[in-house]
Amino acid sequence: MQVLFNKVLIIGVGLIGGSLALSARGRGLVGKIVGMGRSRASLEQALALGVIDEIAPDLKEGLQGTDLVILGSPVGKFEAWAHLLSQESLDGVIVTDVGSVKGDLVGRLEKILDRKAVFVGGHPIAGKEKSGVDAAEASLFEGALCLLTPTSKTPPEALKRVKSLWEGVGSRVFCVDPFIHDRLLAAVSHLPHMVAYALVNSVLDTDVAGENPVSYSGGGFRDFTRIAASSEEMWRDICLENKKALIEALETFQVHVEELKRMIINEDREGLLQTFRRAKGVREKIA
Amino acid sequence: MQVLFNKVLIIGVGLIGGSLALSARGRGLVGKIVGMGRSRASLEQALALGVIDEIAPDLKEGLQGTDLVILGSPVGKFEAWAHLLSQESLDGVIVTDVGSVKGDLVGRLEKILDRKAVFVGGHPIAGKEKSGVDAAEASLFEGALCLLTPTSKTPPEALKRVKSLWEGVGSRVFCVDPFIHDRLLAAVSHLPHMVAYALVNSVLDTDVAGENPVSYSGGGFRDFTRIAASSEEMWRDICLENKKALIEALETFQVHVEELKRMIINEDREGLLQTFRRAKGVREKIA
Repeated sequence: MQVLFNKVLIIGVGLIGGSLALSARGRGLVGKIVGMGRSRASLEQALALGVIDEIAPDLKEGLQGTDLVILGSPVGKFEAWAHLLSQESLDGVIVTDVGSVKGDLVGRLEKILDRKAVFVGGHPIAGKEKSGVDAAEASLFEGALCLLTPTSKTPPEALKRVKSLWEGVGSRVFCVDPFIHDRLLAAVSHLPHMVAYALVNSVLDTDVAGENPVSYSGGGFRDFTRIAASSEEMWRDICLENKKALIEALETFQVHVEELKRMIINEDREGLLQTFRRAKGVREKIA
Repeated sequence: MQVLFNKVLIIGVGLIGGSLALSARGRGLVGKIVGMGRSRASLEQALALGVIDEIAPDLKEGLQGTDLVILGSPVGKFEAWAHLLSQESLDGVIVTDVGSVKGDLVGRLEKILDRKAVFVGGHPIAGKEKSGVDAAEASLFEGALCLLTPTSKTPPEALKRVKSLWEGVGSRVFCVDPFIHDRLLAAVSHLPHMVAYALVNSVLDTDVAGENPVSYSGGGFRDFTRIAASSEEMWRDICLENKKALIEALETFQVHVEELKRMIINEDREGLLQTFRRAKGVREKIA
């Protein structure tokens, strides 16, 4: 494969940024990979694991010869990084991200970077319950969906290069409007995580004859605890950035919980069967 | 190992009954295993798979020489089977079950079988999203919890024999009061399943710019669809039989969802972090 970017600067080398570094380098899609971020320990680890080639001593140095910057920090930090980037020379640099929220944020980042660098929003729908660079794997994006969120300001050439990178690491790439992205993700990712957090805490708050039920848990509850084990800072930022769509999703969910509760109270045998059967049918759709 | 029961009659040879048959026979804990149930096709399959030795032509025949009857049908059918059993000769027979609900039901079954056979309530906390005898495996109970729910009417000798059977197939056996059982299971199993059903249906009802989000699902949503893929009839019966404890659990959960929604609306950064961190911590408790 051809080298798509000569030098990549990853800001926030965690699970996603680290996995992208491993897979892109493994396939010869990028040249040098340099890391930056808040946590020195995490960067040292990324270096020791061979995920990055160098730790950038500062942003100016990190940007020398760089043609792609990847924002991999929690989304709440993106704007601050964009401000710092906008103070440097950014000729020919594409800035992209791997964050779980787009919407408004895309326009805000475009504005901050305006006339200095091109921004292309990206979101690989891949992950696992572990966070941090030590959980990074080169195969994380194989067969996974990756959503890009170009706007009227996105130069087609820049979009094409970012798209080639994600396709190069094995993703199926789709382009969607940033606001549509947020409503889709609110439903299939952000809502499920909120529900898992609420469920786990609800069970933790339950007392049965002086005992907590957690030690009696089988498969059902365990799966929820896996979903609820993601990085709390990342999820706080997602909640705040995708507030509107997430609240809407939560309210639709609340209606369904209330309906189900009513069916149990009313011993609605047929209603319960239909409700369960409908949910069961979804598996075939996502195979 | 010694043979604990000479002949076992399993009524409803599905995932759990079938797995118990495979593991108990594999370890030499039982002699002959005979099956009965509503579905002839399912019994034929159990026979073909070597899960049972024979299909009982009727209850009288099935009970000939039987010292253990296992109720493996959906819990809603237990009382009807107990009535049929109570019309036969049951000298020295222990009746047990593998159902997910106990509570009231235990007393009702004891009453129906009164002076004819001993009842020992049992519930292996093991399972998977597939149901049916073709999903049965001999190793299903290894290391799994099994709860027995003896009452003041349970003869210690009968309890000991049923306990030996479950320990023999590798389970960790605990005895709990039938009503405590239902409250524990409402929290760690029944509630998570209801939440998964409500979530999946809620996402199915979501329209984003004319598209259903399901095709964009990653890890979070997929795990829910797995939980929501269990037998709908089994879950309807569980809802109806464990109504009181389940509604209580659902209401506690609803409070937690509302609280989380409030934190998002109020952009309560610290509250969200604490909520997520607390839920994350539970994984260490159930390792």
